[in-house]
Amino acid sequence: LSIDPRTITWKRCVDLNDRSLRNVIVGLGTRIDGVPRESHFQISVASEIMAIVCLSKSISELKERISRIIIGQTYAKEDVTFGQLGCTGAVAALLKDAIRPNLVQTLEHTPAFIHGGPFANIAHGCNSINATMCALACGDYVVTEAGFAADLGAEKFMDIKCRMNGISPDAVVIVATIRALKMHGGVAKANLSEKNTAALEKGFENLKVHIENMAKFGVPVVVAVNKFVSDTEDEISALEKLTSSAGARAVLCEGWGKGGSGAVELADAVVQMCSQPSDFKNIYPLEASIEEKINILAKEIYRAGSVEIEDKAKKKIRQYEDAGFKNLPICMAKTQNSISHDKGMLGAPVPGYVFPVRDVQLYSGAGFIVVFAGDIVDMPGLPKVPAAQNIDVDDNGVISGLF
Amino acid sequence: LSIDPRTITWKRCVDLNDRSLRNVIVGLGTRIDGVPRESHFQISVASEIMAIVCLSKSISELKERISRIIIGQTYAKEDVTFGQLGCTGAVAALLKDAIRPNLVQTLEHTPAFIHGGPFANIAHGCNSINATMCALACGDYVVTEAGFAADLGAEKFMDIKCRMNGISPDAVVIVATIRALKMHGGVAKANLSEKNTAALEKGFENLKVHIENMAKFGVPVVVAVNKFVSDTEDEISALEKLTSSAGARAVLCEGWGKGGSGAVELADAVVQMCSQPSDFKNIYPLEASIEEKINILAKEIYRAGSVEIEDKAKKKIRQYEDAGFKNLPICMAKTQNSISHDKGMLGAPVPGYVFPVRDVQLYSGAGFIVVFAGDIVDMPGLPKVPAAQNIDVDDNGVISGLF
Amino acid sequence: LSIDPRTITWKRCVDLNDRSLRNVIVGLGTRIDGVPRESHFQISVASEIMAIVCLSKSISELKERISRIIIGQTYAKEDVTFGQLGCTGAVAALLKDAIRPNLVQTLEHTPAFIHGGPFANIAHGCNSINATMCALACGDYVVTEAGFAADLGAEKFMDIKCRMNGISPDAVVIVATIRALKMHGGVAKANLSEKNTAALEKGFENLKVHIENMAKFGVPVVVAVNKFVSDTEDEISALEKLTSSAGARAVLCEGWGKGGSGAVELADAVVQMCSQPSDFKNIYPLEASIEEKINILAKEIYRAGSVEIEDKAKKKIRQYEDAGFKNLPICMAKTQNSISHDKGMLGAPVPGYVFPVRDVQLYSGAGFIVVFAGDIVDMPGLPKVPAAQNIDVDDNGVISGLF
Amino acid sequence: LSIDPRTITWKRCVDLNDRSLRNVIVGLGTRIDGVPRESHFQISVASEIMAIVCLSKSISELKERISRIIIGQTYAKEDVTFGQLGCTGAVAALLKDAIRPNLVQTLEHTPAFIHGGPFANIAHGCNSINATMCALACGDYVVTEAGFAADLGAEKFMDIKCRMNGISPDAVVIVATIRALKMHGGVAKANLSEKNTAALEKGFENLKVHIENMAKFGVPVVVAVNKFVSDTEDEISALEKLTSSAGARAVLCEGWGKGGSGAVELADAVVQMCSQPSDFKNIYPLEASIEEKINILAKEIYRAGSVEIEDKAKKKIRQYEDAGFKNLPICMAKTQNSISHDKGMLGAPVPGYVFPVRDVQLYSGAGFIVVFAGDIVDMPGLPKVPAAQNIDVDDNGVISGLF
Repeated sequence: LSIDPRTITWKRCVDLNDRSLRNVIVGLGTRIDGVPRESHFQISVASEIMAIVCLSKSISELKERISRIIIGQTYAKEDVTFGQLGCTGAVAALLKDAIRPNLVQTLEHTPAFIHGGPFANIAHGCNSINATMCALACGDYVVTEAGFAADLGAEKFMDIKCRMNGISPDAVVIVATIRALKMHGGVAKANLSEKNTAALEKGFENLKVHIENMAKFGVPVVVAVNKFVSDTEDEISALEKLTSSAGARAVLCEGWGKGGSGAVELADAVVQMCSQPSDFKNIYPLEASIEEKINILAKEIYRAGSVEIEDKAKKKIRQYEDAGFKNLPICMAKTQNSISHDKGMLGAPVPGYVFPVRDVQLYSGAGFIVVFAGDIVDMPGLPKVPAAQNIDVDDNGVISGLF
Repeated sequence: LSIDPRTITWKRCVDLNDRSLRNVIVGLGTRIDGVPRESHFQISVASEIMAIVCLSKSISELKERISRIIIGQTYAKEDVTFGQLGCTGAVAALLKDAIRPNLVQTLEHTPAFIHGGPFANIAHGCNSINATMCALACGDYVVTEAGFAADLGAEKFMDIKCRMNGISPDAVVIVATIRALKMHGGVAKANLSEKNTAALEKGFENLKVHIENMAKFGVPVVVAVNKFVSDTEDEISALEKLTSSAGARAVLCEGWGKGGSGAVELADAVVQMCSQPSDFKNIYPLEASIEEKINILAKEIYRAGSVEIEDKAKKKIRQYEDAGFKNLPICMAKTQNSISHDKGMLGAPVPGYVFPVRDVQLYSGAGFIVVFAGDIVDMPGLPKVPAAQNIDVDDNGVISGLF
Repeated sequence: LSIDPRTITWKRCVDLNDRSLRNVIVGLGTRIDGVPRESHFQISVASEIMAIVCLSKSISELKERISRIIIGQTYAKEDVTFGQLGCTGAVAALLKDAIRPNLVQTLEHTPAFIHGGPFANIAHGCNSINATMCALACGDYVVTEAGFAADLGAEKFMDIKCRMNGISPDAVVIVATIRALKMHGGVAKANLSEKNTAALEKGFENLKVHIENMAKFGVPVVVAVNKFVSDTEDEISALEKLTSSAGARAVLCEGWGKGGSGAVELADAVVQMCSQPSDFKNIYPLEASIEEKINILAKEIYRAGSVEIEDKAKKKIRQYEDAGFKNLPICMAKTQNSISHDKGMLGAPVPGYVFPVRDVQLYSGAGFIVVFAGDIVDMPGLPKVPAAQNIDVDDNGVISGLF
Repeated sequence: LSIDPRTITWKRCVDLNDRSLRNVIVGLGTRIDGVPRESHFQISVASEIMAIVCLSKSISELKERISRIIIGQTYAKEDVTFGQLGCTGAVAALLKDAIRPNLVQTLEHTPAFIHGGPFANIAHGCNSINATMCALACGDYVVTEAGFAADLGAEKFMDIKCRMNGISPDAVVIVATIRALKMHGGVAKANLSEKNTAALEKGFENLKVHIENMAKFGVPVVVAVNKFVSDTEDEISALEKLTSSAGARAVLCEGWGKGGSGAVELADAVVQMCSQPSDFKNIYPLEASIEEKINILAKEIYRAGSVEIEDKAKKKIRQYEDAGFKNLPICMAKTQNSISHDKGMLGAPVPGYVFPVRDVQLYSGAGFIVVFAGDIVDMPGLPKVPAAQNIDVDDNGVISGLF
């Protein structure tokens, strides 16, 4: 196929947080040990294959998406697709069971589909379309998680998954905790159990941005307050008032302590919201240029003042647009710890901050463009003290030290 | 721990035949992307962890073996064990179920343990000791496979697994086919179905070496002739005569075509062999030096005239002996296509040929020393036309092209 | 010294245009073959040693500058200087003759110092301070070249070399050719010999920027028109008028054809300029922050609308400022083919264009900060058809094909 | 040319003892930064270009040799010569003056050519053929050095340089010192100045091998004893007796202390030797196979019992022979500190030792095959304490610490 090894963009994938595999050189040794080239590993939740499995409704769609993945270029600078390698069927065969949704039940025997694992920070963050479709076919109300804060999971659920499949959500539930809001208000982790209404008010700025953001999608919003034993009545009522002033309703959810009965009030509120008229719309039009779409996300959702795209990324964007991929949606890879790209920027983002785009990567099979903001990577590292050092197993096979 | 990155001998492991991962450089990029160093991948069947799982009788033994794996050296040239990394318990926790034998049944409901996957060419080639022990506790006769020709699997079964666990086999069954012997007699693959007694006689030299080799272990030998439809009466009777003249008995096995009833004669023969007196002994004493043990294997089993060990390997052998690992058994990594190291050397090896040792590697947790002969590698490559190109799956999930 | 190999910034240097040496990994092999790390080569004219030789007035200053070069960091993130390696004296010994100026003479026996080779695009672009000082001590008027267009060589001469040594130039001579101005006006190389006054007028926009830029340094400017045989009277008089309207005087220089006598008019003009009052000042104050200084250069000299600095470069700038190097001058590495960073932007730069900064590098021994703009590299490549293919030598040692 | 980058054997060359450059990966970065591949540096005295300069008698021969250097292979496994790159003339142009011999004079005004620098341990170790030819044309007697012990320099002088040019030496002078012989007899460096006739006798075994070796070339031998002030009369007379018993004459040379007059006796002895009949012959015939030639050298000159050639080297030898290079002479790269490959083996080599060949490299332009024995490398490292740490230069340019 005359593939230029220097142009291969496909990364090997392994499910270990092994930072040494972020940047590697492979194919060293003699002529029979491959061709030397620079390469990279990523974890599977960030892989295009994971996205494809979650976005394919049938084996034929799976094969179609796999075959249009672009893996590099020829020496003549023409794109090479995975289909040209002739192995689409083999890959699909490996995945034929993986695309079937997986039905489990809760302790109270409520059915739930657990299916698909893209992280919302470095991938599109939603469960599989097949699971959602099955659930819609079976239930009156379908609740789906779109994790890692509403700026990531929810946005991608709306602009990627719903748009690709013509689904309209009827309501959005934003989950919040008083502890987390106090943390966004500047309280240190060790002190989060102490009552601190002032910090709560300050930290509410973060929740307020999320409420406003969700409203931009034209869907009713309810805030579920996930109750902790350390929460005080004063704090709860303060949060309810603040939420109300931001145009949404806060409902206490005690599911953690009381099971299903603790979430009845929340469920009622959601059902009520769903009966309200909703006017679902996307935050950006597909027809906008790639840079415009990044700008809309950065300004409307992440609340940046401006966007700075590195030259290398700009060049790739131009190539993608020239190759006909201008109309794909954006899948932002960005920290989940802040509405901005900077994990230290708590609360509401500093007005006018610059949102930096470091790299972009076309996922032509998944059908979106991954945009890397700040220093997010698709191969995480380990913490300074690896959790493995606490884990043990005794002679009876009982494991300790997991948490 | 002051580990010198240049001394790390532990290889990453992945179950893909990806020759580009044989020799890699990892840890490139910035300070947070690890430490640059040359490294290697191997497939899991060749991994020391696979060997440890197959050789451990309990979780505590598993942990003990894992913790004594040597992964590299400090700058002061002292060995660093896996135990010093503090993650032994975590690794054992992952493997706690893997060391339990797996009981399945044949189509005729005969129980069988299928447990453990080290290849006999690049690893020690036996199923797990736990499976064998369970079988011995349950049955009158236990039959175990030690694959990839008797020079590899059987030798390692005797000299590694049996010796480590004080087991004595009562009889050896060598499986042979008339087709394979004709191939060893020089017949091309396409012509193996044609009758050719002359080639059979010539190729019998290969089987004769195996019969003689097994006899050296002091155990009765029976040859099971795995019948193919293309085998002729003349060829079968010729093979019976040849085997007889080599001091062993050949028994036709028609299990493939007739199921259990096709193997009754073989089973009778084996039972009879087991009632004969046997005097099991190993081919080399553990107290011999590492080079002596390699020499014994090369000359007694692989029928070499002499052994040539590369300087690099010699230096490592000296280090292992100085560090107290002189008395470990040898696990030879060598082609399964020839009794020699050279896959083209069919039939009986050329008298006096030189057996080349390229590298050695201490597996201190598994408790043996891997010796690489010829150009065998622990990360295989793909064939020129990858099998994946023939594989497909249709919309109903039916896979085609696997064989 | 506990140097962290990943932090070493010192590049090996070789005088070959070998692009394959831009990014390398060195130290591979066994323990005795060094420590694996990513590294780079540059050509010697871009090296900090070349800058130091050109900026040192004595051997003791040379040693002082060499010893304060920062070559990397310890694991504790403290800077390591070349002096700490203990080899300052040895390097100075190699350079002891190199810092002495080299006096030659022209065909007409005019003395000239030719000494020092930093290119003005990737280095500070001036001859040695020792040569200039010797010339000032010997002559009535000293003419020095500061090459690769006034936005590079002249700016660095003023802001680096003059400022470091308290020298004030009395006049600036900008050398222009009618052919080059026509090229800046859009004429293809092959057609530059044809008369084209319209293109000349358009291309004059480039010269006008240079005239204005030099005026900002407070020094009188004269434009020397380096006459080619293809220049027409119309074009010459057009250029004189244009220059005059830009506030400077254009003088024809026929030194190429007529030797010294062809430059008499130019010399007279320069002498006259030198008698005018001049008020030399630098374009940026040293006390400004590094980013401010880059901004001033980009906007005042390169006529950019704004500056975009990559995150990696920003981080290094902060480190340099924290380490006390805020007050160093800037040495811009940028293409010589345009006033902008983009070699295709001919004539005057497009108003409001973005000037991109890709990387920065501290030269603490030379005493400036190198700033890389656009895609300029300090290890050039070869042209598509290497000049070497035309070069030959005959049996008598006569070389052909050099030009 | 379709060159397979993995087959390129040509090494970059730099005159620094930089062990980190022995094994590198070059061409990393983007598409414009070259093609990633494993590569190596060597020092220039080991380079094929150095050998070619020393072996070429004219510019046309220089060009002819340069053009036939083999630098790698095409993807179709055909050799690619330097000539195919089209740059032969350019390289020859750089070397046009380098091939001219360089005439200097001693303190006593004796003319001497100093020309060409291949080290005798890693290269062919002789001065240029042009220098020798000029000297032969000018003088009655020509003395040439062939350094690094007679097993290296002298052998290569005879079997490479003399054979290529049809020269026959009339006599061999082996230079010895009593100190060196005592060292070969086991005396520590610090004690070499103490009288020790027993050690001298023991160390003479080394000199005896050299005397015998030179006799095998059919040329008369005289031993020049380079006198040190610490030598005693007893030791000198003991050495004279030992040499005499080995069939050669030892002559005291006091040139170091007394200049030319101190070497008169030696000169007389040499003149006398030259008048004796000599029957110069080579130690191996060119028609022998490459392995045979290595065997002859190892056994006849280095006194080994057998030769072990690594598989990789064997494979390259076969390739060279198949490509028509069987009849080239051998240029052994081996330590100069022992007659064997092992720098610790002092005195005479241990009888029957194994001589290990690690690698071979074809120098098709120079016209020989370099054979690497033991751990010799063509890119040396620095001593543990680099000499550079002692070197300094003062303000007057006076250098100190060189010795």
